[in-house]
Amino acid sequence: MTFSNKLLDPNSSHCSTINRYKIIVEYDGSPFFGWQRQKNLDTIQQRLEDAILPLTKIPTTLYGSGRTDSGVHAFGQVAHFDTEYDLDCFRIQECMNAHLRNVPIGVLSVERVSSDFDARFSALERFYVYKILNRRTKSCIYANRVWDVIPKIDEEKMNLAAQCLVGKHDFSSFRAAGCQSNSPIKTLNKISVRRDSDIIIIEAAARSFLYRQIRNIVGSLFLVGCGKWNERDFYEVLIAKDREKAGPTAPAHGLYFLGVVY
Amino acid sequence: MTFSNKLLDPNSSHCSTINRYKIIVEYDGSPFFGWQRQKNLDTIQQRLEDAILPLTKIPTTLYGSGRTDSGVHAFGQVAHFDTEYDLDCFRIQECMNAHLRNVPIGVLSVERVSSDFDARFSALERFYVYKILNRRTKSCIYANRVWDVIPKIDEEKMNLAAQCLVGKHDFSSFRAAGCQSNSPIKTLNKISVRRDSDIIIIEAAARSFLYRQIRNIVGSLFLVGCGKWNERDFYEVLIAKDREKAGPTAPAHGLYFLGVVY
Repeated sequence: MTFSNKLLDPNSSHCSTINRYKIIVEYDGSPFFGWQRQKNLDTIQQRLEDAILPLTKIPTTLYGSGRTDSGVHAFGQVAHFDTEYDLDCFRIQECMNAHLRNVPIGVLSVERVSSDFDARFSALERFYVYKILNRRTKSCIYANRVWDVIPKIDEEKMNLAAQCLVGKHDFSSFRAAGCQSNSPIKTLNKISVRRDSDIIIIEAAARSFLYRQIRNIVGSLFLVGCGKWNERDFYEVLIAKDREKAGPTAPAHGLYFLGVVY
Repeated sequence: MTFSNKLLDPNSSHCSTINRYKIIVEYDGSPFFGWQRQKNLDTIQQRLEDAILPLTKIPTTLYGSGRTDSGVHAFGQVAHFDTEYDLDCFRIQECMNAHLRNVPIGVLSVERVSSDFDARFSALERFYVYKILNRRTKSCIYANRVWDVIPKIDEEKMNLAAQCLVGKHDFSSFRAAGCQSNSPIKTLNKISVRRDSDIIIIEAAARSFLYRQIRNIVGSLFLVGCGKWNERDFYEVLIAKDREKAGPTAPAHGLYFLGVVY
């Protein structure tokens, strides 16, 4: 006797009734305990899954392209879900946004995709930006949207030091405990540090990142920016492959998940 | 018998002990009942005056360059205050910011100015920006920082229509009830409307503005942007000198007071 779900059973004649939808989501991470569903905690995945329920009629898992920590924001998180119903994309978006009206989560787009699309595993490149407000006065208009750093930091030195990270490296020095990646080896496609008035903007792109890799890199680049480390010191942290050698983890609320290329 | 305040009495030998300070202030207007002090309401002026008290020892009036309505933000509001104490500017800033640590108000700079400087009356040009988020999905990361407008609006048409406002005009059509200005005639130095992705940015500069002039202009430009009015209709609103002819008042939370030139 088999209890296999017909929707997932490749031998079932109903297999062709799986409809897969890709959604792009914006959120302010401040009020949530991160992306991933956790019992009794308010998470972004849970809020989105609750918003899907009226459409799919059954509890439906939403697969994100990557988890974000508590406080991390997204301009373009991507996720997918399956349903046996053939739904109109615009209706999905409107229905979900109606359910999300009282929380800072919004569905920006919904697209029907083939069943071999996977928000996590089909990703070719992920983009993040980290924002530092570099001034003496705390952030007011951008509270919880930037990391407040008082000492004047040199973004050009940070940018130069960061370039040693581009390419394929063992990023153990910037890997947080609890990282579930099989390997600490990742390929960073791009990293740049620039200033726009009081705001330092750090952009990074890679197929995938280790757990807290960007926040750990930013924490170490901060030490370069305020003159505690030079370019060589930063490079030595990378090649040490030792988390103990790196700087602090930059706060979550300066980080934004920008988007994914598939 | 005279009770004139020695600090303000030009005949007093203590006159020279007036020390005037100019401050530049950033705030998120969302949690406040606007700039102006009002009994039993949380206002920006009140918060700042409370933060000055430990320095001046006596209740001290802060004179702003202009009031902002409830919900309106400022990147560079300017104000001045007087004290008999010769205070260090950096100490003023640090002391005020320490008092303001739990509210989204921050003192960006403090400068000693001559006693003929007046934050309001010495202003040569004031700058404002208004931000519209033009998309179907509500603002999440920028909640309370932009006006959410769903219908696609044409920023180029808005920009063209707006140009008729540049110069000296009777702006009665865009003057709100309760305006305390002696005259509805103002000179608008510049207005521009442009798009940066989903965000429409409207910038305006003038020596001074009528009460809610910018929000009323934006509300009418919105009608141009969504095709209800053409350039000629907008011009006819201006020359009608009749508030009834103009569009709605755009919401406060899209407006930012950028700064003042003296």
